[in-house]
Amino acid sequence: MKKNRIVTISREFGSGGRTIGRKLAEELGVPCYDSELIGEIARESGFAEAHVRRAEESSPSGWAGALFSTNRAFGPTNEDYLWEVQRRVILELAEKGPCVIVGRCADYILRDRADCLTAFIHADLKFRADRIVRVYGEREASPEERVRDKDRRRAAYHRFYTDMKWGYAKNYQISLDSGALGLDACVAILKRLY
Amino acid sequence: MKKNRIVTISREFGSGGRTIGRKLAEELGVPCYDSELIGEIARESGFAEAHVRRAEESSPSGWAGALFSTNRAFGPTNEDYLWEVQRRVILELAEKGPCVIVGRCADYILRDRADCLTAFIHADLKFRADRIVRVYGEREASPEERVRDKDRRRAAYHRFYTDMKWGYAKNYQISLDSGALGLDACVAILKRLY
Repeated sequence: MKKNRIVTISREFGSGGRTIGRKLAEELGVPCYDSELIGEIARESGFAEAHVRRAEESSPSGWAGALFSTNRAFGPTNEDYLWEVQRRVILELAEKGPCVIVGRCADYILRDRADCLTAFIHADLKFRADRIVRVYGEREASPEERVRDKDRRRAAYHRFYTDMKWGYAKNYQISLDSGALGLDACVAILKRLY
Repeated sequence: MKKNRIVTISREFGSGGRTIGRKLAEELGVPCYDSELIGEIARESGFAEAHVRRAEESSPSGWAGALFSTNRAFGPTNEDYLWEVQRRVILELAEKGPCVIVGRCADYILRDRADCLTAFIHADLKFRADRIVRVYGEREASPEERVRDKDRRRAAYHRFYTDMKWGYAKNYQISLDSGALGLDACVAILKRLY
């Protein structure tokens, strides 16, 4: 079996993917970087810097030039800069050593590394709706609506930056239904594959 | 963890899904029914009978009436009858006791059973093209063409009879990349979940 130094976890909202990532990292004794943390690091370390660089560039090219949509007609958006800085943060974190990375299309960003185990965690709507109420509390919108809304956003984000179909099994080395299998079983399977 | 009495394996052509199913069944000490075997049982036990029944029916209804396509304008095709008889064979095999079932949309047919572990085995084109030459030998068509052709047929078959997107992670409790993880690791993971 191949050696995995890095585990990337993509997950549906409410599936428990972040919890699985944290438990896995704890059991493996490696750091866990989740979406929020990566966003924070990117904002602190590089977002301002990227803005400065933007002003210095007369014509966007490379990753920026490759992007296209209506509101990108005048160049990359703030989201595009944040994406690029996050991308660099993830590449640097992966260089630093073994870790678990949750979200932020890390699977796609690290796709050329042979030592990466790429996982997708999903669950049915009912399991996720019940879970987000337990974990994040009630909101005005129904839990089902909140799950569907987040699903749409994640799928759109993923598709825009990676051009990969969200939720398609072939994008990942392993996909697990956390609702059917249980979170602990998911952790155990990923640990075994590490 | 829930108790699994039956494991269904959907698989891409050349991914080693059938081999994984057989090894798994052997290690669990339960029978393994693959696509060919189910087709055979269906043909022997029920296909002729279904044809007789067809002649007796003046207007197709139920599962038959629900099907629709150009060549179905005059009623269900032979494939539709075979599908229905196979469906019954699979339901009967599942009733008989614990087993592994490879292919034939068994995951969909048994979707209401709580004791079913549904798995999807996939691998990249190169792995599968190399593997089919080793397992099935050379043919006139290139191995890549043969894989792509089978992929198209399986996706169309699956979609027609189940209305589920082929290869979509949410259709299965677990999806595994046999090329990246290795066949033995796939067997071990499924065995652990049984």
